[in-house]
Amino acid sequence: MSRVRVHNFTISLDGYGAGPRQTRETPLGVGGESLHNWFIPTRTFQRINGNAGGTTGVDDDFAGRYLEGVGAYIMGRNMFGPVRGPWPDDSWRGWWGKNPPYHVPVFVLTHHAHPTIEMEGGTVFHFVTGGIREALERATAAAEGKDVQIGGGAATLRQYLEARLIDEMHVAISPMLLGSGEHLLYGLDLKALGYECTTHVPTAAATHVVLTRRQ
Amino acid sequence: MSRVRVHNFTISLDGYGAGPRQTRETPLGVGGESLHNWFIPTRTFQRINGNAGGTTGVDDDFAGRYLEGVGAYIMGRNMFGPVRGPWPDDSWRGWWGKNPPYHVPVFVLTHHAHPTIEMEGGTVFHFVTGGIREALERATAAAEGKDVQIGGGAATLRQYLEARLIDEMHVAISPMLLGSGEHLLYGLDLKALGYECTTHVPTAAATHVVLTRRQ
Repeated sequence: MSRVRVHNFTISLDGYGAGPRQTRETPLGVGGESLHNWFIPTRTFQRINGNAGGTTGVDDDFAGRYLEGVGAYIMGRNMFGPVRGPWPDDSWRGWWGKNPPYHVPVFVLTHHAHPTIEMEGGTVFHFVTGGIREALERATAAAEGKDVQIGGGAATLRQYLEARLIDEMHVAISPMLLGSGEHLLYGLDLKALGYECTTHVPTAAATHVVLTRRQ
Repeated sequence: MSRVRVHNFTISLDGYGAGPRQTRETPLGVGGESLHNWFIPTRTFQRINGNAGGTTGVDDDFAGRYLEGVGAYIMGRNMFGPVRGPWPDDSWRGWWGKNPPYHVPVFVLTHHAHPTIEMEGGTVFHFVTGGIREALERATAAAEGKDVQIGGGAATLRQYLEARLIDEMHVAISPMLLGSGEHLLYGLDLKALGYECTTHVPTAAATHVVLTRRQ
């Protein structure tokens, strides 16, 4: 049975998954790049970026799980890029260069239709205008029995959580304040939605928790 | 110079300092009592309750700091008790029995005047109807050069944070979800208010952080 998973979504102590005012230069909003201070040094992140080395241990163990058994991704449009409103042209191809770190189909939620983009390395960006359930149906079919991973951002995760469609979500809490931005959990009653904290492994760099939906 | 400190204020992963629906039987609201699972086993908590033993280590180190150098406390009315609106009589004398664990003057914020209550062991409850600044002035005078500690709850801390009157705040993040209740930080831009995370010490039971206001 294909599961719906979230990995490595990082929030600040005050609960924000990104800072305010995302631009092409600040994909995680103002101050948001420091969220990933736990992730950048890991071997997993360094490998994604073609580098040798990197730290091993708990942070890297969590970081690396996002690669295991995932057949398709879903992400919100703002995770795909900084463009807002109707697409002015087809020039934006994601933040990740010619060979993005997905290597499977990626379904991008948007209100504006966009042609499919084939990248190097197996990543294909499909654009879904029919909402979160249509995206999940298409991603599940494309995953061919493997799991579907929801990448983010916060608004996308909130929609899937509210619909109780996420089975398991790894969140890293980074020891910093953002003050404003995209809040992950405020106003979502995760307890009433059936979620509980099933794993809690703190490190010097972040507090890792896994929230799991009861069946 | 007298400082304004907060200690041992505990929030859930989703940021709540108490669950919903506080009553006499559930001082921390529904589900809120589990917030303190990191605190209850410590030697500090056990001593407060007249017991020997208890755990030592990081959790206890943080727990015990609330006793150091504090000359007066401030708390919100809901931390003092479950009574709402005008006081029906003077029978409620706090949650803590005859000898509360404060042993110094405690200033309770309320909209409704109430006579002072002298307890055993040096705790005196004063009731302040003039707002947070009046409470802080009176507490600072009563502390006679020692520090003032703001106990909580969330609504009281939010008011003092927004006014930039807290110098240092220890928050423990407990690995559980509350889903709803009293949110500590949502909508407060702590970063813009000048706060930063200056200490981050996670344990198996909680993630301890200290937020400090820049001068």
